Amino acid sequence: MTYSTYNPYDFANRRHIGPSPSEMEAMLQALGVASLEELIDQTVPQGIRQDKPLSWAPLSEGEMLAHLRKAAGGNKVLTSLIGQGYYGTVTPPAIQRNVLENPGWYTAYTPYQPEIAQGRLEALLNFQTMVADLTGLPIANASLLDESTACAEAMVMAKRVAKSKAAAFFVDENCHPQNIAVMQTRAAPLGIKVVVGRPDALDPAAVFGAIFQYPGTYGDVVDYTGSITALHEAKAVAILATDLLALTMLREPGAMRADIAVGSAQRFGVPMGYGGPHAAFMSCRDDYKRSMPGRIVGVSIDARGNPAYRLALQTREQHIRREKATSNVCTAQALLAVMASMYAVFHGPEGLRAIAERVHGLTERLHRALRAAGAKVLTEAFFDTITVEVGVGQAGILAAARLEGLNLRRVGTDRVGISLDETCDERVCMRVLRAFGIDGVPPHRERLGFPQPMLRDVDYLTHPVFHMNRAETEMMRYMRRLADRDLALDRAMIPLGSCTMKLNAAAEMLPITWPEFANLHPFAPADQAQGYAEVIDDLAAKLCEITGYDAMSMQPNSGAQGEYAGLLTIQAWHRSRGEGARDICLIPMSAHGTNPASAQMCGMKVVAVKSAPNGDIDLDDFRDKAASAGDRLAACMITYPSTHGVFEETVREVCKITHDHGGQVYIDGANLNAMVGLVKPGEIGGDVSHLNLHKTFAIPHGGGGPGMGPIGVGAHLAPFLPGHPETGGAEGPVSAAPFGSASILLISWAYCVMMGGAGLTQATRVAILNANYIAARLKGAYEVLFMGNRGRVAHECILDTRPFAKAGITVDDIAKRLIDNGFHAPTMSWPVAGTLMVEPTESETKAEIDRFVTAMLAIRAEIAAVEAGEIDAANNPLKRAPHTVEDLVAKWDRPYSREQGCFPPASFRTDKYWPPVGRVDNVYGDRNLVCTCPPMEDYAEAAE
Amino acid sequence: MTYSTYNPYDFANRRHIGPSPSEMEAMLQALGVASLEELIDQTVPQGIRQDKPLSWAPLSEGEMLAHLRKAAGGNKVLTSLIGQGYYGTVTPPAIQRNVLENPGWYTAYTPYQPEIAQGRLEALLNFQTMVADLTGLPIANASLLDESTACAEAMVMAKRVAKSKAAAFFVDENCHPQNIAVMQTRAAPLGIKVVVGRPDALDPAAVFGAIFQYPGTYGDVVDYTGSITALHEAKAVAILATDLLALTMLREPGAMRADIAVGSAQRFGVPMGYGGPHAAFMSCRDDYKRSMPGRIVGVSIDARGNPAYRLALQTREQHIRREKATSNVCTAQALLAVMASMYAVFHGPEGLRAIAERVHGLTERLHRALRAAGAKVLTEAFFDTITVEVGVGQAGILAAARLEGLNLRRVGTDRVGISLDETCDERVCMRVLRAFGIDGVPPHRERLGFPQPMLRDVDYLTHPVFHMNRAETEMMRYMRRLADRDLALDRAMIPLGSCTMKLNAAAEMLPITWPEFANLHPFAPADQAQGYAEVIDDLAAKLCEITGYDAMSMQPNSGAQGEYAGLLTIQAWHRSRGEGARDICLIPMSAHGTNPASAQMCGMKVVAVKSAPNGDIDLDDFRDKAASAGDRLAACMITYPSTHGVFEETVREVCKITHDHGGQVYIDGANLNAMVGLVKPGEIGGDVSHLNLHKTFAIPHGGGGPGMGPIGVGAHLAPFLPGHPETGGAEGPVSAAPFGSASILLISWAYCVMMGGAGLTQATRVAILNANYIAARLKGAYEVLFMGNRGRVAHECILDTRPFAKAGITVDDIAKRLIDNGFHAPTMSWPVAGTLMVEPTESETKAEIDRFVTAMLAIRAEIAAVEAGEIDAANNPLKRAPHTVEDLVAKWDRPYSREQGCFPPASFRTDKYWPPVGRVDNVYGDRNLVCTCPPMEDYAEAAE
Repeated sequence: MTYSTYNPYDFANRRHIGPSPSEMEAMLQALGVASLEELIDQTVPQGIRQDKPLSWAPLSEGEMLAHLRKAAGGNKVLTSLIGQGYYGTVTPPAIQRNVLENPGWYTAYTPYQPEIAQGRLEALLNFQTMVADLTGLPIANASLLDESTACAEAMVMAKRVAKSKAAAFFVDENCHPQNIAVMQTRAAPLGIKVVVGRPDALDPAAVFGAIFQYPGTYGDVVDYTGSITALHEAKAVAILATDLLALTMLREPGAMRADIAVGSAQRFGVPMGYGGPHAAFMSCRDDYKRSMPGRIVGVSIDARGNPAYRLALQTREQHIRREKATSNVCTAQALLAVMASMYAVFHGPEGLRAIAERVHGLTERLHRALRAAGAKVLTEAFFDTITVEVGVGQAGILAAARLEGLNLRRVGTDRVGISLDETCDERVCMRVLRAFGIDGVPPHRERLGFPQPMLRDVDYLTHPVFHMNRAETEMMRYMRRLADRDLALDRAMIPLGSCTMKLNAAAEMLPITWPEFANLHPFAPADQAQGYAEVIDDLAAKLCEITGYDAMSMQPNSGAQGEYAGLLTIQAWHRSRGEGARDICLIPMSAHGTNPASAQMCGMKVVAVKSAPNGDIDLDDFRDKAASAGDRLAACMITYPSTHGVFEETVREVCKITHDHGGQVYIDGANLNAMVGLVKPGEIGGDVSHLNLHKTFAIPHGGGGPGMGPIGVGAHLAPFLPGHPETGGAEGPVSAAPFGSASILLISWAYCVMMGGAGLTQATRVAILNANYIAARLKGAYEVLFMGNRGRVAHECILDTRPFAKAGITVDDIAKRLIDNGFHAPTMSWPVAGTLMVEPTESETKAEIDRFVTAMLAIRAEIAAVEAGEIDAANNPLKRAPHTVEDLVAKWDRPYSREQGCFPPASFRTDKYWPPVGRVDNVYGDRNLVCTCPPMEDYAEAAE
Repeated sequence: MTYSTYNPYDFANRRHIGPSPSEMEAMLQALGVASLEELIDQTVPQGIRQDKPLSWAPLSEGEMLAHLRKAAGGNKVLTSLIGQGYYGTVTPPAIQRNVLENPGWYTAYTPYQPEIAQGRLEALLNFQTMVADLTGLPIANASLLDESTACAEAMVMAKRVAKSKAAAFFVDENCHPQNIAVMQTRAAPLGIKVVVGRPDALDPAAVFGAIFQYPGTYGDVVDYTGSITALHEAKAVAILATDLLALTMLREPGAMRADIAVGSAQRFGVPMGYGGPHAAFMSCRDDYKRSMPGRIVGVSIDARGNPAYRLALQTREQHIRREKATSNVCTAQALLAVMASMYAVFHGPEGLRAIAERVHGLTERLHRALRAAGAKVLTEAFFDTITVEVGVGQAGILAAARLEGLNLRRVGTDRVGISLDETCDERVCMRVLRAFGIDGVPPHRERLGFPQPMLRDVDYLTHPVFHMNRAETEMMRYMRRLADRDLALDRAMIPLGSCTMKLNAAAEMLPITWPEFANLHPFAPADQAQGYAEVIDDLAAKLCEITGYDAMSMQPNSGAQGEYAGLLTIQAWHRSRGEGARDICLIPMSAHGTNPASAQMCGMKVVAVKSAPNGDIDLDDFRDKAASAGDRLAACMITYPSTHGVFEETVREVCKITHDHGGQVYIDGANLNAMVGLVKPGEIGGDVSHLNLHKTFAIPHGGGGPGMGPIGVGAHLAPFLPGHPETGGAEGPVSAAPFGSASILLISWAYCVMMGGAGLTQATRVAILNANYIAARLKGAYEVLFMGNRGRVAHECILDTRPFAKAGITVDDIAKRLIDNGFHAPTMSWPVAGTLMVEPTESETKAEIDRFVTAMLAIRAEIAAVEAGEIDAANNPLKRAPHTVEDLVAKWDRPYSREQGCFPPASFRTDKYWPPVGRVDNVYGDRNLVCTCPPMEDYAEAAE
């Protein structure tokens, strides 16, 4: 007998690699190649292939988890009272289990197809309502990356909307240090002068806007109404960075007439996770709504006139506005915003207020005890944070606190800060006081730690959703109902070109909720985060090997953030060489819209490079533009393989031209899933790349975030990578936390080590196989645009739907008809209008791909019927897609049958996904913008 | 300002208690009482109320989890190579996350309503197919409680089916000790003489059956064909207790012509959990199928002729056959059987075989190394287990192994046993050998550890489901598809009378998958299980306080098992007093069918006691029967509150009569949820009760198991509680493991400590409130049977549907129509034929109950229309329920509209649950019994 090599406790590559060996055989046959290697040879030019295979051997699931258990032991979870924007919180276990750990939520994509995203759109609308209510401002978005970037976004937005023409921006010195630092980073390339100072030093006439932290980073609760009024008189914009929990008790920003409010929703049930991911928020005055960055969920109606949610005002987004975009934000923190909104639904206004009162009451007792013992407490009016001047006692008190299992905040050289949170109780206060040598906590008194007029008197969270019966049974069912309305990766392929919707394996997801990883404050002393350090370092080393770069920054917490950080790094390098005047960035027409958006945020001048008819970069045009730029050439930004899904043979040439003119090459890592193990961007001429860990490295998309966009750079650029006030470095930070959304790095690490170098390489090959198989099967029915010179695509393929325009069939009709077939649409109209870009990834099986092909061929046949005039051009299965149960039950007046409408060939019969609404009317929604929860009567009326 | 008392990190009683304070107010008003206390006073007789409130204060979620983390630290997880039926295994994380941790699976009920249970029925059919294939016997059931009880069930079944009239049963001494012990326990009261010996000592003519362990407990692989042939010649039945993993390599029981096979599926991906829960299995010859205990899933057709699964041959079950039942098994281990079946689907036959070959190969190397070093290895032919004679070296080797982090098996006083499993690798072998002072593992050789003829040559798992593409993406989607077909507690109330389908809170479920609890061998040394001991002791103490008993046995792993154990305890006590002849058990007609079934298993004579017209026990009849029994009276078994849902005032009298005649009182704990904190069974006269932890104490039902049925007893009975070969005790064991399904005891402990004594009492009150509210709302539309003398029901109410018989409407029609409304039916035709018993539990909100009432009233109106002749008696929404999407799409030829059919008033519109099949034809299924996966062509044919 022979022993098989099957590794019993490891599904290894079969975990992530969809096609079975026999399926792969059949696919290769369909492509007319003898082996996978032959296909790769036809696809990936020999001249750019890496020499050596990736080095590391795979670990089994058990080994990987054992490694992480050990690393978890290397983290020490003290009670962190550091505050500074990060607080202990309790994730209700029902939310942990039914949202954070439920693939129905975490594998979903951004809700661009609203008909199959009503569940998370509702949850995000709840988030917006919560933020709008608590901040007292009418418009809120569906989350931003972190509080610091939200501050920076608000600053840039203020610049846009302010009537004041002043060039400076005022920053309250009581803002969190990382907020100040990120705003400084972002201001510099845009020529905004940041003035940091005490509010009483503000000269309203000299600034276009100002930001205050409320409560301040050292705890002070200040009424900013006066400053805000003065700013308004000077036609400047007033921004408050604030705290949602504090706002359940404190006067809301809207009441002080603030124009914009920002902050983090972390403490609403989202673990600190050593820095993230968390949902930041932004809200603003109604008249600023079209200037607000990020996504906004709005309410519209569907084809039957029923209320339906969808993303509103999308024309503001960077992928449409390119270099005219005012922000490159495209990822949100959807999963975390959903969690925070559920936390608010769970607790309701009374519960949130009670939590706040409890935290505040404990802080008041601490304050009283310290004062009574003669401590010099600097904070007079406070919510949950106080700062104590301790002189040379600082080190001693911090050390004593640590012995009590507490981290206090080190402020300057002579103060300590203490921030309480919902996990604190009297015992924690006793430990704090013991660190100050004080015994016992004084009794509770019903008294405020801030002046009575600062007490909030406006209701919030009055919508019924926040007054739901809060028994866990009801909450569990609510979360399930919402999840069931959505179509995520746990039910069907999501063939989104450029988005790499691959499996997020269960084993990779397990560790992120372990307390040793979840409950670490990002600014905890380094010796308490050894486990994280080890994993992050090892991941960085592997990503360097994969990309061929020499150093990696884990700070950027989205791909666009990575682009921005990469360009800043290039600029800093130029400056260091006395070439700071270089300001031109060459970007091909076919680039992701975020590329030019990021470049403009760096103050670069974007010069577009034409595409050749075959979709490649027009090399002559590139050469010309580079020559014209001359010594102003700062960088080029290219995507490889190209956004057209082709491995361009000329990539080395493009890099060489750029380098010859003194520029640096930025290679967008969006398509890295087509390269891992085969081609290293750092070897073919790239100086910088960002990596979308949420695409290539198995972090789930979470329904529109989280993401992580670390950047790899050549050795020469390493000194210029982002720094951070807490960890040092010459350059400023781009994110609030030193390692961005650190906790989800565990997922990418687990993916890398379980796959091993060979497994990752095989995944790349199979991603290419899957895409080519789709292209081959659909050829003839659809024109496949942009193939390499040997007739192969890379890891995605572009289908042209423009020929159907004559028959009145749009790309939208196809997308909606795919819903009837049980699929999320491919990427629409990008990079070429009127096309569909299909990326199956390596995770999909041949069977699932065949089901998709069946759907696409059936749709083609339906289009043909319209083209032939066999069916009404306006009343056919395409135009009336998607079909809902309501359609089935209602009177049927269509020239095709219910069966044809609802059960196209690729649809499951028994397990069919039914969209909860019909086609959503976008125009109606943008004309009648509603972006907080509508009153219940609206639903009742619509139903009539 | 005032500070609220809201405990911010604890949802406390609002977690489990459905109605909000304002809802409760409205409900009390509807009932015309001023307070909850007033309602309780009207419901629960004063004379039986407990004096003192339950004592312990609640813990918050955080505190509870912190306690369990500490307890987890008290368990030491060594690598256990003890074997003896329990083996290390790897739960694929995707199964852990998507089945074990997914409320869609774990909150489901037993699939008695097949239309809403197609998902788990398919998974269980996969389980049956897997067992049938691997054992080589055509009929398998859908799981049993554990291997030892499965052995006992097989023994009793053999007694039934054997043509031999011999009275003895032969047990191979190589059976696992706990199997032997449980069979001895079960045999004694039935008068079966158990002969334990070596197979060569078997006298076929002297026995009606025999059981052999294959492979044996000490590892030996023996061909039993000779013994089996001899048994058959003597018309006796041959049983093999076997191991599924071994059967992937070894000749299958069917090939040896065994009649019955049993065993445990634990090592197919189900953690050891210090004893369980796991799924045991049983398979048999085709002609025995109607004699097999437990549930069998079969294939039938639905109203449209499509294939549909359902439980087959239910007429065999104890709840129908009462004292004529041959077994009291009613719980299965559905959730664990689903996991084991998914494990097989994940690995497929090649994978399972590879795992087995790997385990076997390592064992062979160990065997060779030990022999080479001169060790006296007793096992000649083996699969994964070997036994070594070590003389006085035993203690030393066991200690050396422990220093290597290993538990070996202590066999007798001079041997050690070693069992390898799928988690073992070469390093584990090295550690084992080091404990024997041997350095290094010999190289792998392709050679069998058993004789070539014992190598299996028959294929298994040939059905396509076991040849699914095994990429995790596909598997995740398969698990989701199946889960979505079912209606569980995470979508709607399951108002099952007597089944207490309450919330299983997420916080309570978190700890069971922590490795320190999941990976402990039940026979690990006690000092490695201190954490478990602490939790189990504390739970037992709390359950004693709740019930008023003095001692608690945690061994019975189902309610029926608890009944059986309780009656055995009573018998042992009688024997100890020289009254062993007492053999009559009085049981009211209204009792659970398991009561008489359990009594007959104890060899008792069941005497039925009549019910009075009001549903109470007929006291006169009881008195008469007790008097007639006289000194033969062993016990009475009553349920309190009664199965009619009433607190009978006479309960103390019933107990007194029993005691006066020298009998003991068994109070069935099925309805304990109506008593906790208010009434203690041990105080009103009970001597023994079992507690259904899966009803009253928040263990999920898991789609038909697991369960736990610990028994509480008075001090006089404590010495007679079940013992266990591993832990001692005077009496024999009733379960395979000393603490039954130990790992799920954590759930009940978490429930008790988070609720606190007051919270549990409030839960009881609210359960009573909810039931009375339903009764009040439905009164008039339905006759509510059996109320207390003040017009109140206890925690459930019985609705009479017999008046609708005239109109041809059955209880089944109502149940199926409830599916259209999005509900699981109440308990049907029990305890009174033609009724529905409704139990909402405290977890349900008024809103959900109102939705149920809306459904029931709408159904009543539909019945009225039939009664009035307004709609066809055979073609109406009731008779044609449930309505499927297929019905909607097909031609509509009914005298009511699609809208009326599919969207009755209580149905959700957007989030409607659609049953995947129409009404299932039970008769067809039993006539054409198919209980393994049907060939795919069957589905294709049906679809045509």
